[in-house]
Amino acid sequence: MSKPFSIGVDLGGTNLRVAVVSREGEIVDRITVSSTGNVIESLIGAIERLFSDKINGIGLAVAGLTDGKKILSSPNLPILKEIDFVGMLQSRFNTPVYLGNDASVAALGESISGAGKDMNTFVMLTLGTGIGGGVVYNRRLLNIAGELGHVIVEPGGRLCGCGGKGCLEAYASARAMSTVAMEAIELKRDTMMTQYGSRDIMPADIYKYALEGDPLAIEIFKTAGFYLGIGIANYINIFGPDAIILMGGLIGAWDIYVKKAIKTAATAAFKELYAKTAIIPSKLGGDAGIIGAAELTYC
Amino acid sequence: MSKPFSIGVDLGGTNLRVAVVSREGEIVDRITVSSTGNVIESLIGAIERLFSDKINGIGLAVAGLTDGKKILSSPNLPILKEIDFVGMLQSRFNTPVYLGNDASVAALGESISGAGKDMNTFVMLTLGTGIGGGVVYNRRLLNIAGELGHVIVEPGGRLCGCGGKGCLEAYASARAMSTVAMEAIELKRDTMMTQYGSRDIMPADIYKYALEGDPLAIEIFKTAGFYLGIGIANYINIFGPDAIILMGGLIGAWDIYVKKAIKTAATAAFKELYAKTAIIPSKLGGDAGIIGAAELTYC
Repeated sequence: MSKPFSIGVDLGGTNLRVAVVSREGEIVDRITVSSTGNVIESLIGAIERLFSDKINGIGLAVAGLTDGKKILSSPNLPILKEIDFVGMLQSRFNTPVYLGNDASVAALGESISGAGKDMNTFVMLTLGTGIGGGVVYNRRLLNIAGELGHVIVEPGGRLCGCGGKGCLEAYASARAMSTVAMEAIELKRDTMMTQYGSRDIMPADIYKYALEGDPLAIEIFKTAGFYLGIGIANYINIFGPDAIILMGGLIGAWDIYVKKAIKTAATAAFKELYAKTAIIPSKLGGDAGIIGAAELTYC
Repeated sequence: MSKPFSIGVDLGGTNLRVAVVSREGEIVDRITVSSTGNVIESLIGAIERLFSDKINGIGLAVAGLTDGKKILSSPNLPILKEIDFVGMLQSRFNTPVYLGNDASVAALGESISGAGKDMNTFVMLTLGTGIGGGVVYNRRLLNIAGELGHVIVEPGGRLCGCGGKGCLEAYASARAMSTVAMEAIELKRDTMMTQYGSRDIMPADIYKYALEGDPLAIEIFKTAGFYLGIGIANYINIFGPDAIILMGGLIGAWDIYVKKAIKTAATAAFKELYAKTAIIPSKLGGDAGIIGAAELTYC
């Protein structure tokens, strides 16, 4: 019989987070671990403090690729790839340990206690530095590649970090928007953003200028929103979901970026399918990954 | 306990086909029904002749939309939408009756006794007048919208029959290729195909000229193949499947059209995912729908 709590670990962010999560997807206790110093030891220490005989297992959300048992690549914590972290936790705590990609697992979290709670099927997109996602189908996480940020929205277009060209991520992510802004400033485009010079300009800065009416800043968000809308239309036509759930830093720019995406998707997707799809923000935000990771122990 | 045979009905083509199919996906008896005259009566007559107490149920593959119980739209047999065909068959034969979209159901057929037999997860694309498809995930048909021909491969591009712009179907289907050929002929492009004038030129004709070295004919297949490759790359990145299975009349042009698609997908998709994906033709061809429809009674 399954036990009433699990430990969820989110290894995806700059801080590593460990929490005790109830079967219903509520966080009842949590510890944040710095990703500097001896990370492995700190993580084990945090789990130790939270562990009890009521824990059903440990679930890990990892930024990068996993095959469900091994961490195949972990860009922000490469050390995790080099050691058998899952095996180590399993023997140390004598409990099952599960692994999932952070964006997929976040979708699972939203389906347990977030914006997808009462939905059968939805697609979640995480809109941040990169774009990731996950698909919940009939209330279960689809165990697919799920590289939802790498659907091609402009064939032969901008080079993407993945090596492909014209991916959604190369047009609608935070990194893409910063790149476009810096390129435009170098090209001496008319904008209030010139003060940034060749320094990194972040989407939050661009958004501030967009709200002040800067035409370049507005154009950057609208173009990104247009491509996001094409990606959303694709996911509507493929999955016919109850909802597209959006999460990540960029949804702070909902009024320009997401609104443009919704407008684009409305004309690009099948009418009957679009009409039944809610396009809504995540409810759990940064906690979706940790809640979804814990849920892995019940799947 | 389930019985060893089912009746599969394919309402998708110009001829309507009814067959007895074994649990293993072999067709053991079949009748073809003309779609002229009193179709409903002919169909019921054909089912009557094949029905026995060894029949587990009846499965119907329909071109168009279904919700699994009702036929919501049936472009080639509109009459089916107007009557409760499923209910009628159910009471007449006192056996369960199931409905599916013809392209999805064809994917199910390929997973039972075709090219997807030993695969867990694959995407099938049917390449004909239009483009459809289905996704088999962990050996089960995903019950999603599955409008796989309506992924957008060129934002703001050619108007598609669905009302959207730039869909895969508007670039890589037989109808798209005929349209492009006729437009080019009207524009007096240099080609041996001018003899067709404004008459419908079919992909089989274009392919014949392509094999003879006609530059316009080759360009038409390569452009269509390029966009098919973008679509395939998208499905590889989204699903990470064991295979992309291609079926339909256009795969006769494998050497130009599909080869170009494969080359395009190889550079556009994630390398690790592309490497594990076979891109192969259907084994069952025109029988995939009927075999898949019969299988619906066991799902």
